[in-house]
Amino acid sequence: MRKYGIVDTTFSRIDMGSIAYKIIKNEDEDCEIVRYTVPGIKDIPVAAKKLIEEGCDGIITLGWVGKTALDKYSYLASSIGIIIVQILTSKHIIDVTVHEDEADDEEKLKEIAIDRTIKHAKNLVKLVKEGKNALTKYAGKGLRQGYRDAGEID
Amino acid sequence: MRKYGIVDTTFSRIDMGSIAYKIIKNEDEDCEIVRYTVPGIKDIPVAAKKLIEEGCDGIITLGWVGKTALDKYSYLASSIGIIIVQILTSKHIIDVTVHEDEADDEEKLKEIAIDRTIKHAKNLVKLVKEGKNALTKYAGKGLRQGYRDAGEID
Amino acid sequence: MRKYGIVDTTFSRIDMGSIAYKIIKNEDEDCEIVRYTVPGIKDIPVAAKKLIEEGCDGIITLGWVGKTALDKYSYLASSIGIIIVQILTSKHIIDVTVHEDEADDEEKLKEIAIDRTIKHAKNLVKLVKEGKNALTKYAGKGLRQGYRDAGEID
Amino acid sequence: MRKYGIVDTTFSRIDMGSIAYKIIKNEDEDCEIVRYTVPGIKDIPVAAKKLIEEGCDGIITLGWVGKTALDKYSYLASSIGIIIVQILTSKHIIDVTVHEDEADDEEKLKEIAIDRTIKHAKNLVKLVKEGKNALTKYAGKGLRQGYRDAGEID
Amino acid sequence: MRKYGIVDTTFSRIDMGSIAYKIIKNEDEDCEIVRYTVPGIKDIPVAAKKLIEEGCDGIITLGWVGKTALDKYSYLASSIGIIIVQILTSKHIIDVTVHEDEADDEEKLKEIAIDRTIKHAKNLVKLVKEGKNALTKYAGKGLRQGYRDAGEID
Repeated sequence: MRKYGIVDTTFSRIDMGSIAYKIIKNEDEDCEIVRYTVPGIKDIPVAAKKLIEEGCDGIITLGWVGKTALDKYSYLASSIGIIIVQILTSKHIIDVTVHEDEADDEEKLKEIAIDRTIKHAKNLVKLVKEGKNALTKYAGKGLRQGYRDAGEID
Repeated sequence: MRKYGIVDTTFSRIDMGSIAYKIIKNEDEDCEIVRYTVPGIKDIPVAAKKLIEEGCDGIITLGWVGKTALDKYSYLASSIGIIIVQILTSKHIIDVTVHEDEADDEEKLKEIAIDRTIKHAKNLVKLVKEGKNALTKYAGKGLRQGYRDAGEID
Repeated sequence: MRKYGIVDTTFSRIDMGSIAYKIIKNEDEDCEIVRYTVPGIKDIPVAAKKLIEEGCDGIITLGWVGKTALDKYSYLASSIGIIIVQILTSKHIIDVTVHEDEADDEEKLKEIAIDRTIKHAKNLVKLVKEGKNALTKYAGKGLRQGYRDAGEID
Repeated sequence: MRKYGIVDTTFSRIDMGSIAYKIIKNEDEDCEIVRYTVPGIKDIPVAAKKLIEEGCDGIITLGWVGKTALDKYSYLASSIGIIIVQILTSKHIIDVTVHEDEADDEEKLKEIAIDRTIKHAKNLVKLVKEGKNALTKYAGKGLRQGYRDAGEID
Repeated sequence: MRKYGIVDTTFSRIDMGSIAYKIIKNEDEDCEIVRYTVPGIKDIPVAAKKLIEEGCDGIITLGWVGKTALDKYSYLASSIGIIIVQILTSKHIIDVTVHEDEADDEEKLKEIAIDRTIKHAKNLVKLVKEGKNALTKYAGKGLRQGYRDAGEID
């Protein structure tokens, strides 16, 4: 039985963790899912590491980033951390991040967050279940999460 | 008995270490707390590492960052370091940072520093005592430390 | 028999993976090639690591990066990750990245992507087959991938 | 007997190494001090690492950084390296850096460099001799090196 | 017999590798020198690592960096990588980098590249042959590579 981890934050303004939970459960019915909630994005890497140590085969992290330059530095540090955890454990951590400056109004932000979470939760399950060629038919197709697909350049 | 570590600096203009001490003691009465004071933020990661080697179950770090671009680079390097220590030890290091340019007057800065320290000290105790689902009821609730909560987007 | 890895993404708007596959096969006829498709650039380092664990002698990664400042931070985090994987495994990972802001029109972007992929796939095979002096005759020659060579300064 | 390491550079325009030597000797009379001179800041992390491997209990590094954006990137890379060495060895490396753009005239730069070196050399000895609470009485006091103390916010 | 490594690139517009070779041979007559040519700066860290695994006592790397912001991010990632290799191996990697925006005309760029390569090749040999105090007499002297020395501030 596959085991998935979800890391989310109290900083986020949308409960993306619950959305990810439903999607993963739907895509891989007999799986086990564990959730780890931390204050903010800089706490995500260690939480993902701990879930992998508990036996998770793959992780989705759900970050929310403010608008200031400082928030972006935190995003960079957190991103490097998430990549290092993946390198050390050889497990995928699909990183969903929503930046508050991606949209002017809350409705649009919510749309982005939900769409990105759904699509990346599906990506995670595909990679964990089917492995390295699960997404190959979409290679170069310009897929986007949170936005409409950009599409392939002909 | 749980053991907590506090890392603070002489660069900081507010004694956040003492505030963190009181809050942690209040939230987890029988705990042990050790404190490590270093000159500035770039000295924080190794101090946190050493406290974890002494047996701490979780750490709160209390950084203070100046206004210049150089200070921000130091913040980035320090943040990456704190994340690497967490990854290597699988322990939480809740990182409280106050940036001098977050407010124009000292009174406001002090408010931010105190509020952020109190809330994150409580977060640390919750994570250490109760583990990965201690904060899950607040997931996506838009909690803020140092500021009023942003709240959930409906 | 040499074994090569190709890591590509669904974010990319051009199927550079198939191009890399053909070039590598052509340059090293009896080789084995494995392909790993991930959502985006931040997923590349762990995929490369996993292919090396499967026995690949060298990897080509094919990233596509958006236009925003955030995309560039992701590029930086991903680049650091790819370099760390190389350091830990002592294997080359030739990193082909196309930035959407490298050209104003799609036709030009496509030209860049194809040229860069072809040239770097050949570089990878040379390094894997012939080792550290395979490219020495071109040292200092101002070679460019995706653009016309800059040439040597006389 | 405690052993201290000093890493300085030929890029620096002030011989901060000799100043650090005198201060450390004065603060910890029976100690041993070793000095390692490298070309520039990017060579500092490995030199510090080697001195720790030779048995140093703590290190002071004395960097000098130019005015351009490139110099600042080098500063960032070097800072990350110094932090990683500390994390891997659990030893303090107190990082004194002087940036050429901190002052308009050389006299002021020299004042900054000397003051920063003296104060941080004393910090290093305190941390190595007395450990984690040696500086706690100054926690939150707004101490500055190279400048007048900012002081505590009341 | 000492063994030196040279890592250079095909991206570079000047054959700095051959210059470094001559200087090192001249400064340490009985030494062995190995050269490793890679496409660009992001390939340098792993090549340096491999040369150290082959027994090199010290390395000089010869990078060339374009003018765009993206090139600078690549420079930063590469610099961090080179520093990590040094930390993991405890060997010096003297990093010569020429940035295309350091000069307006090619003649000047060439002068910078040659001067920087010569001076740093000599630095490398000094450090490898004579160790940590080989450069101490120049500490704080404001030496520059690629430019005229800035000199000591009196």
